Amino acid sequence: MTDIRIPYAQLQRFMSVAMERLGLPSADASVVGNLMAEAELQGSDGHGVIRLLPYARRIKAGGMNLTPQIKITSERAGMALLDGDNGMGHLVMKRAAELAIEKARVCGVAWVGAHHSNHAGPASLYARMPMMENMIGMYFAVGNANHLPPWGGLDMLLSTNPISVAVPALHESPIVLDMATTVAAYGKVKAKAMKGEMMPLGWMMDRLGQPLLDPKRADEGFLMPIGGYKGYGLALIVGLLAGTLNGAAMGSEVIDFNHDDTTTTNTGQAILAIDLSAFGDVDAFKARVDKLVQELRSSERMPDVDRIWLPGEQSQQRRMDNTRDGVPLPSTLIEKLDQFAAEHAMPAVREVN
Amino acid sequence: MTDIRIPYAQLQRFMSVAMERLGLPSADASVVGNLMAEAELQGSDGHGVIRLLPYARRIKAGGMNLTPQIKITSERAGMALLDGDNGMGHLVMKRAAELAIEKARVCGVAWVGAHHSNHAGPASLYARMPMMENMIGMYFAVGNANHLPPWGGLDMLLSTNPISVAVPALHESPIVLDMATTVAAYGKVKAKAMKGEMMPLGWMMDRLGQPLLDPKRADEGFLMPIGGYKGYGLALIVGLLAGTLNGAAMGSEVIDFNHDDTTTTNTGQAILAIDLSAFGDVDAFKARVDKLVQELRSSERMPDVDRIWLPGEQSQQRRMDNTRDGVPLPSTLIEKLDQFAAEHAMPAVREVN
Repeated sequence: MTDIRIPYAQLQRFMSVAMERLGLPSADASVVGNLMAEAELQGSDGHGVIRLLPYARRIKAGGMNLTPQIKITSERAGMALLDGDNGMGHLVMKRAAELAIEKARVCGVAWVGAHHSNHAGPASLYARMPMMENMIGMYFAVGNANHLPPWGGLDMLLSTNPISVAVPALHESPIVLDMATTVAAYGKVKAKAMKGEMMPLGWMMDRLGQPLLDPKRADEGFLMPIGGYKGYGLALIVGLLAGTLNGAAMGSEVIDFNHDDTTTTNTGQAILAIDLSAFGDVDAFKARVDKLVQELRSSERMPDVDRIWLPGEQSQQRRMDNTRDGVPLPSTLIEKLDQFAAEHAMPAVREVN
Repeated sequence: MTDIRIPYAQLQRFMSVAMERLGLPSADASVVGNLMAEAELQGSDGHGVIRLLPYARRIKAGGMNLTPQIKITSERAGMALLDGDNGMGHLVMKRAAELAIEKARVCGVAWVGAHHSNHAGPASLYARMPMMENMIGMYFAVGNANHLPPWGGLDMLLSTNPISVAVPALHESPIVLDMATTVAAYGKVKAKAMKGEMMPLGWMMDRLGQPLLDPKRADEGFLMPIGGYKGYGLALIVGLLAGTLNGAAMGSEVIDFNHDDTTTTNTGQAILAIDLSAFGDVDAFKARVDKLVQELRSSERMPDVDRIWLPGEQSQQRRMDNTRDGVPLPSTLIEKLDQFAAEHAMPAVREVN
């Protein structure tokens, strides 16, 4: 499988036109298309361009509102609760981030939650929005499919609810944590199965709580939460903050969007913005982050470890490389995009301009 | 080793008098003593009464300020930054929680950070303070000794920086997560060594990154962060939020309070309060938490699993049991408290009233 590099601006245009063809108003199509391209730019390939087809399927099935009236249903100086009106999550959470930034400028911190949102792509896209405004951004989301039972249980009542935190630095790459609360993502399990390899200990367990190593038996077990019962607790807390608090789906209410294209997902997400200038000099803070980054990177290393990485450093590198060289897409994905383009009377991704 | 149960009120009085004997003003001694007793009440025995002796050692060495002027050094409507003036962490973080609650009532959410604080006991004590006011409480702290290298590294530059989140329920126990970002706490390693048992896979690794199973070799390795590099990322983020943001110690600046009684620790902590009433009806939220709790608890279970627990459920049970039956203290700890009492001309813990 070879990768083909598409110039970033070209990918943005393709995705924006594609979303317009699916029926989104032009301005909204640009927002969603650009965020999907940005996900791909930073290497979040599981949440980027590949989602075009499932989004298209859901839109055509009537499962998402193409012209949502996103509105504030509760508000105080430092918070707001948004009703996403079943619009695409990208639109709802961009609005949430903008509102959180605006309120944090006044109050120092602000929290904006949403209900009746939808899948919004990688968590870090939204944690980065306050970060670009000299703030710390945090993002919490309820995943759109339950993969985790409570610790000791067998019923899959929890998703791998992700959390992302983005912290700006001065000269160094920003620190951007973006993690699910399971040891491995489900995509990694599928990749091992395709290669015919066994999984490392700790990725999955079976219904007896014993290690499950054969990815072909993945259906017989569960992903392991990080730190065992601790990851179960984290997934639950993220779900309470992003789902239950907002009156969004949580637990058995979560709709598996892999197998249901029509039921309103009532997806919940939340964003927190912390304005650095409220705490003191912004550049002094960023310089402290730089110093810490350099200290961690300079640590003596284990044998065979070439470099110590900071969270988000590799995706920042991909952002720079791919902006310069184009965004790599697997040829199999390009074929799917070409087929989509043909079906929707629009130029192919390699031809659009 | 047998446990002796001390009535809760009696333990509160003993600890308060002990702190007064160490030189704290009477009102402050009560705050600290009561919080230390409360830690013990809920079973946080590593952060409760056992800390009296190390606190006494540091106070006598001049390492903490007995009459701190805790003051706000930056403030906006939804945030404040406190200078703890090197006072006991319990005093600083109780003040921080009160301020966060007050501000969250107005803004909906509020964040209060602190620098020049000190060890404050278990994280959950402070996350619970907003919870008792119909809010969600979150607490972040930089630990007072570095036990973790960055992922792939050998230099211990990070602590097991804990996080706690407390969410009130209606009829069910509140959900209270209180976790360090390592798989096992160091105390558990010591306990295995004392019993002559091997550690489970995943608790520690050696300097080659290989599993370390013999707790007697603990000095040759490191605690494992939960989920490997994910836990490293979490420990770093918690440290950025609780330390770096506040201008408190982080990375190599952290003072190991086990081996240094005099240097100002400049401990950093932070608390976030989210007022439930800003999002909608408080009882409706709590009812949703109850429903979720019941759903998780009712999950089908793995063989040999008697019950599915929610985070904080067992410590809530201990709070109730120990309030009724007295707080169990190991006889070896009672002996130390008796010695402390004799040296400080105060009644013993079994005699105070």
